[in-house]
Amino acid sequence: MCFINSFGIIGGDKRQLYCAKSIADDGCSVFLSGFDKAENLMGLHNVDTEILAQRCEALILPLPVTTDGININTPLSDKKIRIDEDFVRLFDNKPIFCGMKNKLKSGYELFRDVQLYDYGERDEFAVENAVPTSEGAIELAMHEYDGTVNGSRCLVTGYGRIGRVLSDMLTGLGAKVSVSARKQKDLAFIRAKGMQALPTYNLSGNYDLIFNTVPSLVFDAHTLAKVATSALVIDLASLPGGVDFDGAERLSIKAIHALSIPGKSAPKAEGIIIKNAVYNIIEEEAL
Amino acid sequence: MCFINSFGIIGGDKRQLYCAKSIADDGCSVFLSGFDKAENLMGLHNVDTEILAQRCEALILPLPVTTDGININTPLSDKKIRIDEDFVRLFDNKPIFCGMKNKLKSGYELFRDVQLYDYGERDEFAVENAVPTSEGAIELAMHEYDGTVNGSRCLVTGYGRIGRVLSDMLTGLGAKVSVSARKQKDLAFIRAKGMQALPTYNLSGNYDLIFNTVPSLVFDAHTLAKVATSALVIDLASLPGGVDFDGAERLSIKAIHALSIPGKSAPKAEGIIIKNAVYNIIEEEAL
Amino acid sequence: MCFINSFGIIGGDKRQLYCAKSIADDGCSVFLSGFDKAENLMGLHNVDTEILAQRCEALILPLPVTTDGININTPLSDKKIRIDEDFVRLFDNKPIFCGMKNKLKSGYELFRDVQLYDYGERDEFAVENAVPTSEGAIELAMHEYDGTVNGSRCLVTGYGRIGRVLSDMLTGLGAKVSVSARKQKDLAFIRAKGMQALPTYNLSGNYDLIFNTVPSLVFDAHTLAKVATSALVIDLASLPGGVDFDGAERLSIKAIHALSIPGKSAPKAEGIIIKNAVYNIIEEEAL
Amino acid sequence: MCFINSFGIIGGDKRQLYCAKSIADDGCSVFLSGFDKAENLMGLHNVDTEILAQRCEALILPLPVTTDGININTPLSDKKIRIDEDFVRLFDNKPIFCGMKNKLKSGYELFRDVQLYDYGERDEFAVENAVPTSEGAIELAMHEYDGTVNGSRCLVTGYGRIGRVLSDMLTGLGAKVSVSARKQKDLAFIRAKGMQALPTYNLSGNYDLIFNTVPSLVFDAHTLAKVATSALVIDLASLPGGVDFDGAERLSIKAIHALSIPGKSAPKAEGIIIKNAVYNIIEEEAL
Repeated sequence: MCFINSFGIIGGDKRQLYCAKSIADDGCSVFLSGFDKAENLMGLHNVDTEILAQRCEALILPLPVTTDGININTPLSDKKIRIDEDFVRLFDNKPIFCGMKNKLKSGYELFRDVQLYDYGERDEFAVENAVPTSEGAIELAMHEYDGTVNGSRCLVTGYGRIGRVLSDMLTGLGAKVSVSARKQKDLAFIRAKGMQALPTYNLSGNYDLIFNTVPSLVFDAHTLAKVATSALVIDLASLPGGVDFDGAERLSIKAIHALSIPGKSAPKAEGIIIKNAVYNIIEEEAL
Repeated sequence: MCFINSFGIIGGDKRQLYCAKSIADDGCSVFLSGFDKAENLMGLHNVDTEILAQRCEALILPLPVTTDGININTPLSDKKIRIDEDFVRLFDNKPIFCGMKNKLKSGYELFRDVQLYDYGERDEFAVENAVPTSEGAIELAMHEYDGTVNGSRCLVTGYGRIGRVLSDMLTGLGAKVSVSARKQKDLAFIRAKGMQALPTYNLSGNYDLIFNTVPSLVFDAHTLAKVATSALVIDLASLPGGVDFDGAERLSIKAIHALSIPGKSAPKAEGIIIKNAVYNIIEEEAL
Repeated sequence: MCFINSFGIIGGDKRQLYCAKSIADDGCSVFLSGFDKAENLMGLHNVDTEILAQRCEALILPLPVTTDGININTPLSDKKIRIDEDFVRLFDNKPIFCGMKNKLKSGYELFRDVQLYDYGERDEFAVENAVPTSEGAIELAMHEYDGTVNGSRCLVTGYGRIGRVLSDMLTGLGAKVSVSARKQKDLAFIRAKGMQALPTYNLSGNYDLIFNTVPSLVFDAHTLAKVATSALVIDLASLPGGVDFDGAERLSIKAIHALSIPGKSAPKAEGIIIKNAVYNIIEEEAL
Repeated sequence: MCFINSFGIIGGDKRQLYCAKSIADDGCSVFLSGFDKAENLMGLHNVDTEILAQRCEALILPLPVTTDGININTPLSDKKIRIDEDFVRLFDNKPIFCGMKNKLKSGYELFRDVQLYDYGERDEFAVENAVPTSEGAIELAMHEYDGTVNGSRCLVTGYGRIGRVLSDMLTGLGAKVSVSARKQKDLAFIRAKGMQALPTYNLSGNYDLIFNTVPSLVFDAHTLAKVATSALVIDLASLPGGVDFDGAERLSIKAIHALSIPGKSAPKAEGIIIKNAVYNIIEEEAL
């Protein structure tokens, strides 16, 4: 399924290491750079960027590529790998897989003419990431909630990719799950699964666990007072989130903005998700 | 949720009767016309079309409205209710709910200026109908297959509304379910549910039960020979379907085109689905 | 797993044929007798009982072995195979697998010293049969009920093997399932699955579908009036069943005694269940 | 359901607090003793043991009642409540609910003639505790395993109460679940759920996550080497457990003895489980 036989992986955290390991397990050569401090290289080799560039046909960069705008994001290395003309020239004519391609193209004149492919903007990448995100949310709920998820009254707001995966998992654990959506079509799917369907902007009921996936203010103080007074609220929406955290505090409702779930709880799963997206690009683009 | 208090229901089969009953149970007045032969009117009254028109604020017509192009489709009556100027004038200024609005508008000059609403084209109507369709398919499979669905190897092709609902139900019965889709995104959703995901146009494996939901020739003779030699094949796609039935016969594969499932197996469920769609229109249009 | 290499199968219906076919698929020699009228012998051969006896190391008889007390139960043959001394002598020193061994031993002096093994009294035989029985009950419910199982309010009384399997399947189809049991322990298991748990002899609620598995009068007229007035009642308990059918009729409640479900709906599954039980006996007894 | 209207709860941790809270929510008077250091008394009052004794009709003691053999087990208090004649006399003629009744009766002459009831030995108490134990195991697995439970290959050994609850939850999360049991009957139940069934003492396969519930040495070094080389092993069996931990270390297999799961992860759920058991005793004994 993979027409490229050697990959270089520069920078990133444990996710990139697992991505590298999984590619190597498929029979490809894989070279690492920027992992000097990694505890365990899983049998792979960390080499200089130049050597890596000579030996690999394609490059995989982390998500995000950079955190300081100057160097590659290498949390597992003390050395800096500068994103400059020399760096880009190393990978001339080689496909580079990264996240946030557009940001990279607009931020760096250098990348204008490079063969850049974005694994992070693919639909299946987002859907597959809903799995570790949902499990991370469940782990957090299990950790923070004094009851069991089983038998608890759960509300999941939003029936996008996280809402779909998370509500199935909660049901699978034996929770009583209500899910909100805006579209009648989604409400029909929710009911077909035997869950209670609610309109997102007219919530009702009393819940033990509330998971928000909607990136707009679904849980203003009024709504919190109505449905969440005895609930633990976990906000999975990206910044600024969908919960009035000040309001929650005033109402003594425990609310957690779980921004950092993806990437922490299941690096192996996420490394494989990156690999899958890269492979799909290679197949579609016939690289 | 319903701002209209009296409904007339003209024509149709048991589904329309259950629709009427369910509306009456919500506290509205309901009048029937075209149900002279119905065994059981569920406590409602069958009246002349004129009387019905006087007493109701809105009209619900069956799906399809007509089968002969001249009269209302009234399988439960021997009398004919002609679709003519007199008929349409009776419902002047009253909302009329029907299926296939466009066909009606284009076929009958008369309906040009009428307040017509189509319950059949709504997304949630289609999704909700996936439930009785899926159950009908399962009932058929249980009836025709000498083994149990539980433990059987099932393939569902297509991950649209029927594919989504049916594959969940089969899993819920304890089958080993593989689902095919074209989009990587849908394949990711399928895997997230713990099912095997396959590309629709490159099927593999051996199955006991195959359910096709894709309205194009997925199961040509070659594919049948590859995956279906010991399977019962149930085609749920609309005409012309997705199975080479001649090829199946040559290969001694039992294949059934299950066109008539909806409307037969669960008229009560389908009556309520029509009601829900009508109510949603009333709410959205503020009728 | 099977230390016997040749089997004779005398009498029975399609279940025994599928049992024979499945044993043959495992690589053993299989001979049939008493299947002259069978439409399809699945590639196997129907022979005289004497020839069968010469060629096989073990014999499998149907369940029940006889219906008239004189001949083997052979619904798929016009010829009679008499159970007499000659018959028994044919299988001298060969293990005979049958159902209801004790009835056979007590009814026929002849069988006193024969090596008889009862596949029907094994625990796993009963549990495995709960699967086709549950599916048969679901098929019946789908056929008789005008709504869908999905979304319906189901009550299953009794949490023995059928109650356990059936309640899981109904939940898997998206029904709202309540289950009754007598023991606190079983009520706890039911709740752990996210279902509502009820005491068998103090039922409450309103249901669309009721499945009784308890072989005592759970549904007297009083209880029917309390929980079943809008329900379809399917009695799966063996005779005399657990439902007051006269009372149901007086209350206009549709109640079905589904005695004949096993054996009809899924002969292939049931043939394999017989085979599994026979194999387990062979393994345990080191035959 | 509760014929006693006032309860005293002496000693224990957060579980007993939640038990107290839940009883109070049912409308009974509840008095606490031995909770001086508790952060949050949930609106209840901590009083002297004598006052508590005067005001309550029944007493609930923690599980275990004592850890030092001299005083009540009061982890949330610095004061000591001595188990002596004075203490016992306070509750003369009042029912006392505790865990490990027999140990108490044999260890303390004092308790010989006391009305002692053991909530810990009840079947439903054990089954209900399987829920927080299973969730605790899943939380631990999510925390320790770098992949997701979803999609992982899980093995659960033993199909007792924890095996039954845990395997359902893992399946509900989208794992590929194999379960082992000794009895053919249980193997049949496992297969009926669509899981792979294995004999406990002849395991095979490769797993990512292994949960042992069998309290005997199922995982000797040989078995670990066979099925667990790439697995995280979580042993849920009581001491000495079912895993050769030294062998696991030699094989570089991560193995965790999760003895302390119950009681930590879900004190609210466990408090309610204690309450339910106490209520069931009251009802059965007509106290």
